[in-house]
Amino acid sequence: MHPRLTLALTLMEALAIFAYAISGFIEARNRRLDAVGTFLVAIATAFGGGTLRDVLLERRPFYWVEHQGYLIAIFVMSMFAPTLLKMTSRLISQRVLLVADAIGLGLFSVGGTALAHDALMPWFISVMMGVLTGVFGGVIRDVLCNEVPLILRDSRPYATCAFVGCWLYVLLDLASVDTVYSVLIATGFILLARLVTFRFDIRLPH
Amino acid sequence: MHPRLTLALTLMEALAIFAYAISGFIEARNRRLDAVGTFLVAIATAFGGGTLRDVLLERRPFYWVEHQGYLIAIFVMSMFAPTLLKMTSRLISQRVLLVADAIGLGLFSVGGTALAHDALMPWFISVMMGVLTGVFGGVIRDVLCNEVPLILRDSRPYATCAFVGCWLYVLLDLASVDTVYSVLIATGFILLARLVTFRFDIRLPH
Amino acid sequence: MHPRLTLALTLMEALAIFAYAISGFIEARNRRLDAVGTFLVAIATAFGGGTLRDVLLERRPFYWVEHQGYLIAIFVMSMFAPTLLKMTSRLISQRVLLVADAIGLGLFSVGGTALAHDALMPWFISVMMGVLTGVFGGVIRDVLCNEVPLILRDSRPYATCAFVGCWLYVLLDLASVDTVYSVLIATGFILLARLVTFRFDIRLPH
Repeated sequence: MHPRLTLALTLMEALAIFAYAISGFIEARNRRLDAVGTFLVAIATAFGGGTLRDVLLERRPFYWVEHQGYLIAIFVMSMFAPTLLKMTSRLISQRVLLVADAIGLGLFSVGGTALAHDALMPWFISVMMGVLTGVFGGVIRDVLCNEVPLILRDSRPYATCAFVGCWLYVLLDLASVDTVYSVLIATGFILLARLVTFRFDIRLPH
Repeated sequence: MHPRLTLALTLMEALAIFAYAISGFIEARNRRLDAVGTFLVAIATAFGGGTLRDVLLERRPFYWVEHQGYLIAIFVMSMFAPTLLKMTSRLISQRVLLVADAIGLGLFSVGGTALAHDALMPWFISVMMGVLTGVFGGVIRDVLCNEVPLILRDSRPYATCAFVGCWLYVLLDLASVDTVYSVLIATGFILLARLVTFRFDIRLPH
Repeated sequence: MHPRLTLALTLMEALAIFAYAISGFIEARNRRLDAVGTFLVAIATAFGGGTLRDVLLERRPFYWVEHQGYLIAIFVMSMFAPTLLKMTSRLISQRVLLVADAIGLGLFSVGGTALAHDALMPWFISVMMGVLTGVFGGVIRDVLCNEVPLILRDSRPYATCAFVGCWLYVLLDLASVDTVYSVLIATGFILLARLVTFRFDIRLPH
């Protein structure tokens, strides 16, 4: 149907998984974890949200079972995480990581909403499960590293951007827009919302 | 059959869910979480125990999926949590919250025990799953807020009250007492046990 | 078939479960938890890994449901945990606990790998699920006690020993060695690896 768009989605997904894993690596370095800790925190960050979603929706096999290549890649990366982080911090700016993470937030949230709705969940529940899919990996990462999860206290709109973007997906779906387009548009909106709220330092109330 | 008793149970359930959510709001305020954190901690507290029970027993759909009204209500309340807490602290005394929370502990524990037994679990397992249903929401709340869960260290009988009350339910069930009465009696016992142990400052050994 | 070997496995399993529970008791004492906290941390440590494995593989009933005797035994032990720990610290040396824990790590990891493979998981995934089965109880224990999990930061090879041992099991299985022998050999290897790396203070890179 849309071979190019499907390819785009696959590329975005890979980008997002590695962005989440790298945020796990960074947290692991800050906490001075060893190689095993680095790997476990990275996979918890990358696959935690999707696994929670699959448990809630009783979907099997898990994403990381079907695509074990990602798991193996993160496994190999973990062993070189310190070197990798030095390289990425030279090659990749903070901004690139922000964008990659926001693409992941968008893709996982919107994708989670779509899957929950396919599993006949009502819309509000679907949106909630979508947002959880997007943010839960980061929550486990922070719980494992013994911190109050960043998204609970940051006051920068993160889950909020995902929440609004998921409702945008719902509207597009109700308007019978093709799924691939709806996912791309809603993900793009979430990316944009993250960048704009970050740029203008917009904050949630405490 | 018992339309009035069923209504009573539904009202107690609503009361309990909001009591649990409010305990999440209070913890979120103490930890200075933002609006998103407040909401996530509140729903984790209110629905965490029931969700764990449903995963363990493979029950679907989840309670909060079937009764999404509660989820939406807590969502709306989260946005006004600071105002709400000021209002409740003026209108509602500490004692009312203690009673509402104890009703929740009783209802969720006893209800969890009944559901586990219906799923053919042996009695000891059913009681354990019941107690977990009652206390697990508070455990997640405290883990998310980066504290050793209160029920693990408080030494005030909380899980213990639920444990004894669940066995009371088992006895009533074995004596062929009608389920609705058994649930109400056992819940009433747990409420009473909480109030009495609180009043006389009875402590568990360390 | 192998009545003696099966008996050996059952005994090793019992030994391992109590070793895990005792590590929960010790952590609970360090954190000054009450009796309820001691029990919950002990069962989370002893059964957390197996429960996660069963949720991931959709296996039911849970191990601790089928063998509720272990649950009841830990329940009773929790009430005497302080006395018990004093007794064990006099009777049982640190080294015995290390050996018992290593047997548990080996048995649970290798057993988890075998079960995951029986559930048609690919080998890399099976090994990962096996290692998770072995280490996850300790992770929950430390999260409940509000610490960064020991296995994430210790730099002593723990998950690493399990990982290598699980691959040894895979090799033996591919070589058509009988399952009971494979499990015993791989478990023995993990025990040995733990003792050797401990003795020579071998560390993972940070």
